[in-house]
Amino acid sequence: MPTGMAATGPHVLRKINAAAVLAALRDADDQTARVSDLVLATGLSRPAVTRALSTLGEARVIESLPTTTAQVGRPAVRVRFRAELGHVAGVDVGMHRVQVTVTDLAGTVRAVRRETPPSDATGPRLVEMVRATLAATAADAGIDPAELWSVGIGTPGIVNHESGEVVLAPSMPGWSGVPLVAELRDWLGCPVLVDNDVNLAVVAERWRGEASDNLLFVYWGERIGSGIVIDGKPYRGASSAAGELGFIDLVTPIDTEPPNVGDGLGAFERLVAAGAILREAMSRCEAPLRDRLAGGDLAPLFEAAAAGSATAMAVVDTIAARFARGLATQILILDPERVIIGGGVSRAGDTLFDAVRTHLGRLLLVPVDLRASTLRENGVVLGAIRMALDAAEDRMSALL
Amino acid sequence: MPTGMAATGPHVLRKINAAAVLAALRDADDQTARVSDLVLATGLSRPAVTRALSTLGEARVIESLPTTTAQVGRPAVRVRFRAELGHVAGVDVGMHRVQVTVTDLAGTVRAVRRETPPSDATGPRLVEMVRATLAATAADAGIDPAELWSVGIGTPGIVNHESGEVVLAPSMPGWSGVPLVAELRDWLGCPVLVDNDVNLAVVAERWRGEASDNLLFVYWGERIGSGIVIDGKPYRGASSAAGELGFIDLVTPIDTEPPNVGDGLGAFERLVAAGAILREAMSRCEAPLRDRLAGGDLAPLFEAAAAGSATAMAVVDTIAARFARGLATQILILDPERVIIGGGVSRAGDTLFDAVRTHLGRLLLVPVDLRASTLRENGVVLGAIRMALDAAEDRMSALL
Repeated sequence: MPTGMAATGPHVLRKINAAAVLAALRDADDQTARVSDLVLATGLSRPAVTRALSTLGEARVIESLPTTTAQVGRPAVRVRFRAELGHVAGVDVGMHRVQVTVTDLAGTVRAVRRETPPSDATGPRLVEMVRATLAATAADAGIDPAELWSVGIGTPGIVNHESGEVVLAPSMPGWSGVPLVAELRDWLGCPVLVDNDVNLAVVAERWRGEASDNLLFVYWGERIGSGIVIDGKPYRGASSAAGELGFIDLVTPIDTEPPNVGDGLGAFERLVAAGAILREAMSRCEAPLRDRLAGGDLAPLFEAAAAGSATAMAVVDTIAARFARGLATQILILDPERVIIGGGVSRAGDTLFDAVRTHLGRLLLVPVDLRASTLRENGVVLGAIRMALDAAEDRMSALL
Repeated sequence: MPTGMAATGPHVLRKINAAAVLAALRDADDQTARVSDLVLATGLSRPAVTRALSTLGEARVIESLPTTTAQVGRPAVRVRFRAELGHVAGVDVGMHRVQVTVTDLAGTVRAVRRETPPSDATGPRLVEMVRATLAATAADAGIDPAELWSVGIGTPGIVNHESGEVVLAPSMPGWSGVPLVAELRDWLGCPVLVDNDVNLAVVAERWRGEASDNLLFVYWGERIGSGIVIDGKPYRGASSAAGELGFIDLVTPIDTEPPNVGDGLGAFERLVAAGAILREAMSRCEAPLRDRLAGGDLAPLFEAAAAGSATAMAVVDTIAARFARGLATQILILDPERVIIGGGVSRAGDTLFDAVRTHLGRLLLVPVDLRASTLRENGVVLGAIRMALDAAEDRMSALL
């Protein structure tokens, strides 16, 4: 094409149509569809869909499935997106857990690894651990890490999600400014994107969860943070620092000097994040429940409460009351349509959430729709995968 | 025009052009302009502007000003919007103050009255007081209340700003459900609109203050509330209940049952609104300052602090520290670009706001641009006037 000529004409049109047909195919159940389904989904004519399918077939992005013989008349051609064409990885990096999930291009999980960093892991050692876990998970999925099309990473702290730099991560000492993205990009040779973990959990709720257009998502796990969706769009604030519920101080008495924010965990995290729940339970429960909690897993506490243990129920009620106090401040400010609680503690079940709802009642001016996330502890990684899949789009369209 | 015919043609076009020219004229300094200014401001041709001016002149919406003789060549015609053509009123109704301001159609103030309701004023008596103050202020402006083109009202509580009903007003007992709008509409026979007072103060900041596109406005007076602007648009929440900072509870110790929200003033209001500042000052300051405060005006406290009184400075610092605790929770959630403090306490001056900034420093992850409103105690009324002027537009365009 001569310099300065605009990129138009039949070639470009075919590419656009192919991309539209591909998008419709990937949105379909099992990523398979008949031509007539694609005509309906794209609004293109049947000949245009057929031409697009032939472009996609030549690029080996799709394949035709064997036709079923049970049908009367001309058998309908069924095509399938070849999701195995490439892989992406989603990574959740925190102080207490590194999770890597590798999926195909349809987001179907191929391998998962969860590792626990040593408690004294520094920034560079954590980067090393991410690298090793990525390599191992890729191997589990039967690929070389260099074959990954893109990697998405979620991590605590305030992330400049354009530059990929972690600007501030008070809950992870030594993590701010670590060149995580640059190092992984050099190693893998593919796009590596990073965002705040809670923001990614919100992305996941919108992709595969129960997000509404005006949503408050609260991450409740080893840390506490929140993500805000307003009019269907993520709201990040003026400095990408919105939603820092974990740093709200409801504990230091008024007229007493509060500790400096940003030294380690936030005040609300110290009050009611997973570690605080465990300490509260260990100090109030007795054997055998106490022994079952010693490993650090909170599930036995919530099970005992659900089974009617008075002590466990009392601990759960204390936790629910504390959590409701912080959540209420944020609901009074934002008045969201719906509140979804994600993170590890969201797996606690109805005993905890019914108690949170009861305590919230007396703190709010307007009732709120509160629910536990259906994504359990996988929210951050799912959001990271969604971000990686979006980045993989460019490579896909270059094939056409 | 035959039924079913669309409203197009030269008549409609002339009306649209006249409205555009009028809008440009009203935006101009002193609401006066030359034809060439209006050509520039509207993008219309000179003949179109001239035709529009003749339409506006026939409707007596504008008038030509006497031409100045000092100029060389053909004297430039200067026109003026006849803002005196009509009047609107803005009303601020609270437990402790009813303010009515009457302006002309350019928003220029013609009369102001401030009344203090008796401390036991009920809903109906407050409506009666609004009515009497409206009548008196209209008389001060030289008009009959029935001549008002529209009235805007700001009031505490959660207001359904479509129906004009006050849904919930915990800080004003007996105020919810009072048929304020219906009664005034029947009496005046003009549009009467009502909105939450703090929302209107935000409207005023955007009209005549220092609003930015991502703004947190905090009203600090007899009550505390906040208004949020996101991407240049007011954010009201799912139930018009966003920004209820006054109801945040930072006082009840954790693991203690908090009082029910919605019984009178909110916990944060009880801690640090004007009444609480006065109580704190009265209990700690001595004569003669104590005597000067007895009337209820806080100005002597802030003047004494600015003049170096150690006790007054200590009181101001206590108040600043408390206010910073609540403000920090909201900033941690919203991460606004700018924070503007309005309401009566915003007149306190630098001593208070410097202390607030200092205390905020240790509570925030990211520094914030905090400033006192330049609108002083007039924010709510100005917002109500802006709302009334918007409603008056319809009547104006019916003249053309």
